[in-house]
Amino acid sequence: MQIAKIIGSLVATQKDEGLRDHKLLVCQVHNHENKPKDQYVIAVDAVGAGPGDLVLYATGSSARQTNLTKDRPCDAVVMAVVDSWDQDGSNVYEKWSE
Amino acid sequence: MQIAKIIGSLVATQKDEGLRDHKLLVCQVHNHENKPKDQYVIAVDAVGAGPGDLVLYATGSSARQTNLTKDRPCDAVVMAVVDSWDQDGSNVYEKWSE
Amino acid sequence: MQIAKIIGSLVATQKDEGLRDHKLLVCQVHNHENKPKDQYVIAVDAVGAGPGDLVLYATGSSARQTNLTKDRPCDAVVMAVVDSWDQDGSNVYEKWSE
Amino acid sequence: MQIAKIIGSLVATQKDEGLRDHKLLVCQVHNHENKPKDQYVIAVDAVGAGPGDLVLYATGSSARQTNLTKDRPCDAVVMAVVDSWDQDGSNVYEKWSE
Amino acid sequence: MQIAKIIGSLVATQKDEGLRDHKLLVCQVHNHENKPKDQYVIAVDAVGAGPGDLVLYATGSSARQTNLTKDRPCDAVVMAVVDSWDQDGSNVYEKWSE
Repeated sequence: MQIAKIIGSLVATQKDEGLRDHKLLVCQVHNHENKPKDQYVIAVDAVGAGPGDLVLYATGSSARQTNLTKDRPCDAVVMAVVDSWDQDGSNVYEKWSE
Repeated sequence: MQIAKIIGSLVATQKDEGLRDHKLLVCQVHNHENKPKDQYVIAVDAVGAGPGDLVLYATGSSARQTNLTKDRPCDAVVMAVVDSWDQDGSNVYEKWSE
Repeated sequence: MQIAKIIGSLVATQKDEGLRDHKLLVCQVHNHENKPKDQYVIAVDAVGAGPGDLVLYATGSSARQTNLTKDRPCDAVVMAVVDSWDQDGSNVYEKWSE
Repeated sequence: MQIAKIIGSLVATQKDEGLRDHKLLVCQVHNHENKPKDQYVIAVDAVGAGPGDLVLYATGSSARQTNLTKDRPCDAVVMAVVDSWDQDGSNVYEKWSE
Repeated sequence: MQIAKIIGSLVATQKDEGLRDHKLLVCQVHNHENKPKDQYVIAVDAVGAGPGDLVLYATGSSARQTNLTKDRPCDAVVMAVVDSWDQDGSNVYEKWSE
């Protein structure tokens, strides 16, 4: 999985029937110092994530292992909202202190 | 998924029988500011996308989760046409205002 | 899928029994202007492609969706020979005009 | 598989039900000279790895081939702790000599 | 598949039970001119490859299509030892002439 921040969303009406009603999130990938990278992914939301949330997303066939995305043409899913992130003995991110 | 623009198409008669009648689109990948990247993918069209359309494509085994691509030797599928794209509180793209 | 040119072949006698009799092609990846990139892939031939052909190859589990590669330890397959390639309203490549 | 060092961990309460109770490790990828790269992955721990351990992780559908990760939305798993690493006739890493 | 040279091996006792008795090889990836790249992969040996051998490896779910790696948390497998490699009409590599 990679860490990303939700920075936007997409609307698409002309789409494969397997993706009706799925929320499509624009996720900017973060590096291991929690800085934004010049990389993004469009992922289906499986956990009710919102704008500004720091999240984890899974890709490939693993992105289809949630109830919402099973057998869908979806190769990326937001499957967790990060609460806290500790690294090298210090705190990189704490959701509730933002 | 990634965002791309349809910039062309390919014709191939000598191909695996699993891909008869599939439309092969040349898709130029766009970055998160909707600028073209020096990267492309050839994807099967599953939604009737046309030249100039901004689309979403899925890769890997997820590209085989549409009726059209199930069990086919296809690793990329256009599965949505983007209508609108909002980011950081502003509108990056609106199909009908183009 | 990506576009590539067949530039060579490999012979391997000490190999997994799932790959007996498969032709192994050296494919140089091309960019979206039909220029060779500094990138290659070794792919199993599923369509009778030959040296100099411009082809499409599929990767990952999708590379196992041909009769020849089903259940084989093969992560790339040549599944089409390109006849013509149109882009931005002009012709990038035409097999029979070469 | 790639080699990585465990440098941190994440906590997420709002997550897909398939990932309850899984330990999420921040793994910094190492190159073939055992130097840290500017690349990381968040992986589920399947072997009881701890901070500072040099480990192997597997990605994609292969990350779901452990008892702990089967059918879960998980695309990376730590599946081995490295004891020793020999290369070009010399020892690159020995766990117990650290 | 990609071409690589076997440059080392790893030992890991604390690992997922699916990988008991598997030989873990350090493979340095080669480019299409048979020069080493700054890239490696740790792969399970399925063909009895040894140090210095030029090999092919497959990744992803295709790495689990050998008897040895079926259903294992393994995302890379050495599935062939290269005997000879011809390109653009000349010989790039010949095992027995080394």
